[in-house]
Amino acid sequence: MIVESSLTETRRIVRAARGRGVLIGCIPTMGALHQGHVSLIEVAQWECGFNVATIFVNPTQFGPHEDFTRYPRTLDADVEMCRAAGADLIFTPPVSAMYAESAQTIVRVGGLAEVLEGSHRPGHFDGVSTVVAKFFHIIEPDRAYFGQKDFQQQLIIRQMVADLDLPVEIMTCPIIREADGLAMSSRNRYLSVAERQQASQLFQTLLLAEKLAAESTLTPPEISRQMADHLSSVAGIEVQYAVIADAVTLKLLQHRSNPAVALLAVKVGSTRLIDNQILRFR
Amino acid sequence: MIVESSLTETRRIVRAARGRGVLIGCIPTMGALHQGHVSLIEVAQWECGFNVATIFVNPTQFGPHEDFTRYPRTLDADVEMCRAAGADLIFTPPVSAMYAESAQTIVRVGGLAEVLEGSHRPGHFDGVSTVVAKFFHIIEPDRAYFGQKDFQQQLIIRQMVADLDLPVEIMTCPIIREADGLAMSSRNRYLSVAERQQASQLFQTLLLAEKLAAESTLTPPEISRQMADHLSSVAGIEVQYAVIADAVTLKLLQHRSNPAVALLAVKVGSTRLIDNQILRFR
Repeated sequence: MIVESSLTETRRIVRAARGRGVLIGCIPTMGALHQGHVSLIEVAQWECGFNVATIFVNPTQFGPHEDFTRYPRTLDADVEMCRAAGADLIFTPPVSAMYAESAQTIVRVGGLAEVLEGSHRPGHFDGVSTVVAKFFHIIEPDRAYFGQKDFQQQLIIRQMVADLDLPVEIMTCPIIREADGLAMSSRNRYLSVAERQQASQLFQTLLLAEKLAAESTLTPPEISRQMADHLSSVAGIEVQYAVIADAVTLKLLQHRSNPAVALLAVKVGSTRLIDNQILRFR
Repeated sequence: MIVESSLTETRRIVRAARGRGVLIGCIPTMGALHQGHVSLIEVAQWECGFNVATIFVNPTQFGPHEDFTRYPRTLDADVEMCRAAGADLIFTPPVSAMYAESAQTIVRVGGLAEVLEGSHRPGHFDGVSTVVAKFFHIIEPDRAYFGQKDFQQQLIIRQMVADLDLPVEIMTCPIIREADGLAMSSRNRYLSVAERQQASQLFQTLLLAEKLAAESTLTPPEISRQMADHLSSVAGIEVQYAVIADAVTLKLLQHRSNPAVALLAVKVGSTRLIDNQILRFR
């Protein structure tokens, strides 16, 4: 496995692999890898002949008061996890190589990027879509792998790819959870022991939504209220949103219809967590 | 020569050509071709083994009160000119294939796109950079050819390519002029006989700027004033801007320095024309 920080060298190596006729897979990450990332690399490795994991804590997707500087950086452990999962190349560019001082171009997805995470984190998705477009231009992958954990993000990347005719197929892989249901996240390591226990209620809330969608006749707004009530009853949790939306457009659902997704964002202490679950109305 | 309107078929044909080991050239146009376009195709044909001219009147780069509907469409003549100049494929997508109703993504270049044409034509460069990014994703060219006539446009495309790491080299080709100096433009055919004669004063104004830069000690603002005065003295011409700017940043020059470019935009009757000339201060 190669660890490479140069853009031009990465492009050269990937093009050489493509010249050998294999599919190119890309797994964009910010490092601090966990089993969720590992599962993406493993799927990529089953499907593609040459797989590039990117490790880049992208400054442009963090707000001014967010956790860019303290975001966990664990490169040595990340390299070993990528190797074990079967990546062929890790691309770890320095910030200066990704963003020239004169840089002034953004890729902006409209509607989808303005709601939910977009309204709580202004500019976040401009940073995400721009850096992912850059990775797609450097690596030129046939397939790119994203986690369902960042549900809105994978929808936005799919929209960008469709709108800009990018020649890449977006693959969304299932959420990987801890034993008590907490979705794996690099930010889980911010949690204290007490917060870690409170955080398990996110998954319980999604199970509640799933049960109410399947077994009750409640409307999506009524289920959303029960989700918010459940979360608010947990000491230490502050609800940012708990909603049921169309799983394609992210418009809030008023009536029981599919495809539907329950989405939530909370703060547990000072740590912001998100989670989601596809629902099935009958 | 192939004339193709399908995105996927165009991508397939170009990829097959790349598989034969040749360089891919791309010449984006809005049709209504003239000798300026022909010169781009000819240069591409000297440099690249497979050349794709795109013919697409892009609605998103026209303002609501601009000439989208009456922009000249001369496909049969265009096809013959492309064939004679040596293009291998003409890509002529319908608007519906380029823009889905659900499309919501733009590529936006900042600073450079906000001045001069950008301030007179709000949204124009968002439309240009977005459609050119789409063409680059569909055709995946090694080189793309633009005319210096649209000086600000080629700078913006270069900036976009650098900022987004697009794997394409931007080639800027000289302005092609009529016998009296009028820069070739698809919009010249809007001009009446009288307007056509007035329009020749654009080039005379640029020659004046070139002479004053080379032979006087006037500052750029003083030369700009003479340019505007010269243009304003022509009956039927309304000056939108006549400036001298840094040829890389497009910041207006206060002092005699290189690289410099004289840029102007006027209305001749109801027709909007632009032109430019690189200056050499000594």
